[in-house]
Amino acid sequence: MKATLYGGPRDISVGERLDSRIEQPTDAIVRVLMGCVCGSDLWYFRGESPHALGPIGHEFIGIVDEIGDNVSTLSTGDLVIAPFLWCCGECRPCQSGWPSNCVNGGSFGNHGHDGGQGEAVRSPYADATLVKVPSDDYDAVMMRSLLALSDVMCTGHHAAVSAGVQPGQTVAVVGDGAVGLCAVLAAHRLGAHSIIALSRNPDRQQVAKDFGATDIVPARGDEAVERVRDLTDGYGVDAVMECVGTGQSMDTAFGIAAVGSVVGAVGVPHEVVVPINKMIFSNIGLRGGVSPARRYIPELLPDVLAGTINPGRVFDYETDLDHVLDAYQAMDERRAIKSLVHIGR
Amino acid sequence: MKATLYGGPRDISVGERLDSRIEQPTDAIVRVLMGCVCGSDLWYFRGESPHALGPIGHEFIGIVDEIGDNVSTLSTGDLVIAPFLWCCGECRPCQSGWPSNCVNGGSFGNHGHDGGQGEAVRSPYADATLVKVPSDDYDAVMMRSLLALSDVMCTGHHAAVSAGVQPGQTVAVVGDGAVGLCAVLAAHRLGAHSIIALSRNPDRQQVAKDFGATDIVPARGDEAVERVRDLTDGYGVDAVMECVGTGQSMDTAFGIAAVGSVVGAVGVPHEVVVPINKMIFSNIGLRGGVSPARRYIPELLPDVLAGTINPGRVFDYETDLDHVLDAYQAMDERRAIKSLVHIGR
Repeated sequence: MKATLYGGPRDISVGERLDSRIEQPTDAIVRVLMGCVCGSDLWYFRGESPHALGPIGHEFIGIVDEIGDNVSTLSTGDLVIAPFLWCCGECRPCQSGWPSNCVNGGSFGNHGHDGGQGEAVRSPYADATLVKVPSDDYDAVMMRSLLALSDVMCTGHHAAVSAGVQPGQTVAVVGDGAVGLCAVLAAHRLGAHSIIALSRNPDRQQVAKDFGATDIVPARGDEAVERVRDLTDGYGVDAVMECVGTGQSMDTAFGIAAVGSVVGAVGVPHEVVVPINKMIFSNIGLRGGVSPARRYIPELLPDVLAGTINPGRVFDYETDLDHVLDAYQAMDERRAIKSLVHIGR
Repeated sequence: MKATLYGGPRDISVGERLDSRIEQPTDAIVRVLMGCVCGSDLWYFRGESPHALGPIGHEFIGIVDEIGDNVSTLSTGDLVIAPFLWCCGECRPCQSGWPSNCVNGGSFGNHGHDGGQGEAVRSPYADATLVKVPSDDYDAVMMRSLLALSDVMCTGHHAAVSAGVQPGQTVAVVGDGAVGLCAVLAAHRLGAHSIIALSRNPDRQQVAKDFGATDIVPARGDEAVERVRDLTDGYGVDAVMECVGTGQSMDTAFGIAAVGSVVGAVGVPHEVVVPINKMIFSNIGLRGGVSPARRYIPELLPDVLAGTINPGRVFDYETDLDHVLDAYQAMDERRAIKSLVHIGR
């Protein structure tokens, strides 16, 4: 089968790989329909983070092609959404709502495991990992939103949940990548009254507005802090979603957080120094992390199917597997918010 | 009037000071019955943190001696508990439950303002700041618990609330000072099933047990982490209360925190580096700060008056105003958990 392979920084190619096959009775083989490129993929693409060589891509939807003898909730032909990490469903983290920290879990598209930017993927613990979608007959717009549930929408939602977004609040999102935009959508879904999106890019500003942003602050750093404070009578916002993970973005997040608020952070940290004194003296909390996507997908799926939320709107570049490098480059050069890769039918 | 005065590291004396008097119509003058020494007082006593010279002491109970023309909820003769910070009750932080971050607030016993280790204190915003106790006729044991509501019990409670302690959970407290012990009591009051107290001191271990600790870990650092993990099948605890504020105590707190848990921190930070990668990859949160004592006192007072909780148990050394230096020295040398200072009648 064909799969995208990582050969080192900026070395993304499509190569041949042994067909995925059932190895454990709890496995399923998923024929991938669509995959996509994650903002976190750019870290290793740019050589800024390490990543195992070999198959990549951790976001995908597809059709169940084969199931192991112990798989009971899925059948061949089912359309499924894969959360970006597989999970056993039975360990203590899984049972307590943290499938992303499953002690038997792992990431698709890393350490030699099949990736979502390939023709097929073996999913361990298929019953616990894959989420079946009621039908397999959706239009292209709906399919894109189902794909967004694989990671980016669940991660934006985790930022909002971690920040404790409540109905009626004034909140802000730091980061205008696909996750940040989905955080805007998640905050809107949770009933935030005012949503301030920090973005200097007109295309992303438009998506933020479409997702429910009420104010756009086209600034960064101290200037952004000042403008958000101006918008909030100097007090800062009731909840902050930090969707970048750099030192500057975290500083901005704490700079605009009101007394008693929480910064919900989902970016992979890069050179972040947490301002502990500010936290303690202003009672500002910090929560978040790797999204428990497998817990959130069933919660968000009905709203996607009802058309209430349309997170697939973040995909503004698309190509096919043979051109997957373009998908990376479009994001790397910030020509695209998020790239979709059509793989199978 | 007589008051304790700070003259620099280890320079604690009792001196004369102008009598407290009404300056604003919202003021009240409180004749202090009892004050005490806070663990945070030791930082400047030891010269490890700066502090303004002059009156000190931010915890006290006393009798209202005089009220300004605009004070409506208090009368002379009322027994009152002072939270360690005064607050206006009307600004946005006050209205949103964060009186400790009042924009018009300040600390008793700092920057020249009357301290609780003196014969009288002028309280600004007396209606919003002071909490009236229903009667003024209590035995000595009850009076000590009322005094503990001024800071230490509310601060321990804030650690527990910030950590999100829930009924049935297994939790741990890092720090066996008076605040840590009160955090044990607060966690017990909130229904924690198992409470692990980290303490190497037999006297403090006993108070922890009296307050509801089910397990004592007499270790620090990596050894403590290992032992708490052994007690929790390797997973760590559901909530951690960090009541010290040093780099080591914070490392221990994160070392014993389970996936998805929150570290509730109330220690004044000293050389703390927050382990952001661990937080993000294990979904461990950090909340806490300066306790909103004025919000908590009315919540905790009924339990104190009913005898359900007895936080005054933390006072194991007592003296009078003339011997206030002894009160500091007893705590500095760890001969006392917390020192009470009898001041008036």
